[in-house]
Amino acid sequence: MHYYKEDDMSAVPSNEPAHAPRNPYDTPRKMLNMSTGPVEVSRRVLEAQLTPMLTPHHDDFWALHDETLGLLKMALRTRERVLLMHGSIRSGIDLALGNLIGPGTRMLMIQNGFWGTLVGQWAQLHGAVVQTLDHGPLEALELDRIRDKLRAERFDIVAVVHVETNSGIVNPIEAIGKLVAQTDALYFVDTACSAGAIPVETDRWHIDVQTTGSHKCLASIPGLAVLTVSDKAWGRMKSARMGAYFDFRRWWQSTVERSVTPPFTQPTTLVLALRQALLEITEGGMENWWARHAAVGTRFMDDMRAAGFRMLLDEASTPHPRHAFSDTVIAMTYPEGVADAAFRHTLLEDSGIFVIGNVGAYAGRSFRVGLMSPPQLDERNLQATMAAIQAATLSLAAAPRAPSPVHP
Amino acid sequence: MHYYKEDDMSAVPSNEPAHAPRNPYDTPRKMLNMSTGPVEVSRRVLEAQLTPMLTPHHDDFWALHDETLGLLKMALRTRERVLLMHGSIRSGIDLALGNLIGPGTRMLMIQNGFWGTLVGQWAQLHGAVVQTLDHGPLEALELDRIRDKLRAERFDIVAVVHVETNSGIVNPIEAIGKLVAQTDALYFVDTACSAGAIPVETDRWHIDVQTTGSHKCLASIPGLAVLTVSDKAWGRMKSARMGAYFDFRRWWQSTVERSVTPPFTQPTTLVLALRQALLEITEGGMENWWARHAAVGTRFMDDMRAAGFRMLLDEASTPHPRHAFSDTVIAMTYPEGVADAAFRHTLLEDSGIFVIGNVGAYAGRSFRVGLMSPPQLDERNLQATMAAIQAATLSLAAAPRAPSPVHP
Repeated sequence: MHYYKEDDMSAVPSNEPAHAPRNPYDTPRKMLNMSTGPVEVSRRVLEAQLTPMLTPHHDDFWALHDETLGLLKMALRTRERVLLMHGSIRSGIDLALGNLIGPGTRMLMIQNGFWGTLVGQWAQLHGAVVQTLDHGPLEALELDRIRDKLRAERFDIVAVVHVETNSGIVNPIEAIGKLVAQTDALYFVDTACSAGAIPVETDRWHIDVQTTGSHKCLASIPGLAVLTVSDKAWGRMKSARMGAYFDFRRWWQSTVERSVTPPFTQPTTLVLALRQALLEITEGGMENWWARHAAVGTRFMDDMRAAGFRMLLDEASTPHPRHAFSDTVIAMTYPEGVADAAFRHTLLEDSGIFVIGNVGAYAGRSFRVGLMSPPQLDERNLQATMAAIQAATLSLAAAPRAPSPVHP
Repeated sequence: MHYYKEDDMSAVPSNEPAHAPRNPYDTPRKMLNMSTGPVEVSRRVLEAQLTPMLTPHHDDFWALHDETLGLLKMALRTRERVLLMHGSIRSGIDLALGNLIGPGTRMLMIQNGFWGTLVGQWAQLHGAVVQTLDHGPLEALELDRIRDKLRAERFDIVAVVHVETNSGIVNPIEAIGKLVAQTDALYFVDTACSAGAIPVETDRWHIDVQTTGSHKCLASIPGLAVLTVSDKAWGRMKSARMGAYFDFRRWWQSTVERSVTPPFTQPTTLVLALRQALLEITEGGMENWWARHAAVGTRFMDDMRAAGFRMLLDEASTPHPRHAFSDTVIAMTYPEGVADAAFRHTLLEDSGIFVIGNVGAYAGRSFRVGLMSPPQLDERNLQATMAAIQAATLSLAAAPRAPSPVHP
């Protein structure tokens, strides 16, 4: 056999690093991640990944896997199916659409922001006939318009996002669910920025398909998509649309019923980390955890407003009540003279705190703080974040800096 | 809003744990994982997952991500595209097929075992017209038959598995590659049980699409599918066949070119772990790591044969040369009177060593040891494994035990 010689590999391919990594332990500097996901996770969640010998070929793993599904059912208030898939939240959305959509599937997308637009576009890629019920990105969804639409036409799927990532607006999932339940349509709800932190009553609110992921309000490591699927939705899965691996029915057989062996290889460490995160969230009862989020969210918004910041939602044409402001995505606008990239660069360099810009129409003029996980709700971290935001704003109003290469 | 009361959740849903987890730190007992994947990984690979603040919204992550792709190019000997996706090896196979297959795609599946059969079946699920060139599961692939087939008919894809998981047979990828390169077909090779441990010369062997994953010979945590894609194959991707998220062209734009922002959320800790594993494998040069595998494999097989064990491949109708026995999957048959489940149960209970049964036609009468990762090649672990296998065999030949609930 012939091997490449050393000098054969001297040219640098397009995505090869310019320099060889020197120290195998080098990592980026320490920072506090106060963004809206992936979130800062607790030490015990990180350390759950250290269990080295777990393998999905042994029952010990599956006991912990099943516990994780059970904890998810408790957190999401459902007795129906929970699926835990490889991937991010977007992969969960895309897989759910791929498994639900067939030729001619009619979908109503009720939207007021970035995620809603994305879900509708992706459904179209899978071949659905999508109608959108557009609302301004800072405006409340109008129940009357939704009711009229559902009375006038028949849909296979009605989709909506619980908390929009642009503004942090909380959409009325329970009320829309009551309307959808009077039709034959499936109710598809993305709860990426709510489930785990803000009340989500999956079964009671008639949610048929729900998408979220490990790395936001479930307070764990990125890499797992979490889905709930009602019996009604389960019966309408389009088998084999998504090949073999990501066909929900096969996945269920392989990873929950385990009637197919060997089961697909699971991302074991991510499952263990999610289990730890769920233990942390659920241990005092979900009501208490939701109440803690509400208290922290209220105080954070009050304090930021007192310091002169405005919430992006404050710019809506009609004032929103408190319950329309999520406790998880705090979307604020910049004071006069403060540039987005320079602000986030200063915050990171001077205080080691990472927050995130906004996307879509609000890129550049708004930033977002995540209050999603236990470390993000920690008192010292909250104080440090608020102080650092004010300091960075003051320093920039005095002397603006050059933009940094930080992503939105 | 109404919340469930405590007693509302008292019924146990179908996949909820029978008991609440008591201690958040409880984990299964320590064992040495000598199976064929997921493999035992080193402490430094595990600890790479502890970096808590990495987020794909920050360039620090992408620098490490790109280093990982560069290290993969070095390990797999390619200057072409490398994709790192959420999922296991099977998900990578399924996604590659989904991105390559369109209406009427003709595929030739050359097979002599479990994985080859699976790849062909999954291609059919995606709509390919699949012909199989079947060989006995312990028999060498016949180059003359392959040559004749490729001269007689035109195929869009020719697929083969490098090391078959049943027997550990090494198929002649380089020689088949020369034949395929004389045609217009794409050459699809699964290297799950070879790449990283046994020579794989992706570009030199004309491999257009390669599938492997983090948790076998790349010696890392399960959860990442690794693919290489040649320019030729890239030009033939069927866009939008796989929706939005798992469309390879979108994935490339989002995660390598990063011309789409925000990029999809990556499983950051798995990328860091894989980077550490690749540093460990590549640091002394791939030739030396391959040579170490060959030396350990030779000694292990010699010692096991000397202790009275037979390799499954020894049962082939025609004797195989040494180079047909992989150094990574050591598939052995049980001595007279030793039952599969009892053997593996005893090995685990008495010595804390986990090996794996066989699948398909060889389930029950063969077991497999993985020699894939640095900890599996560690001298003390090798000695302990060989001693424990012999002890378990002796004890069982004397007094058979009841079967255990260990998966194959």
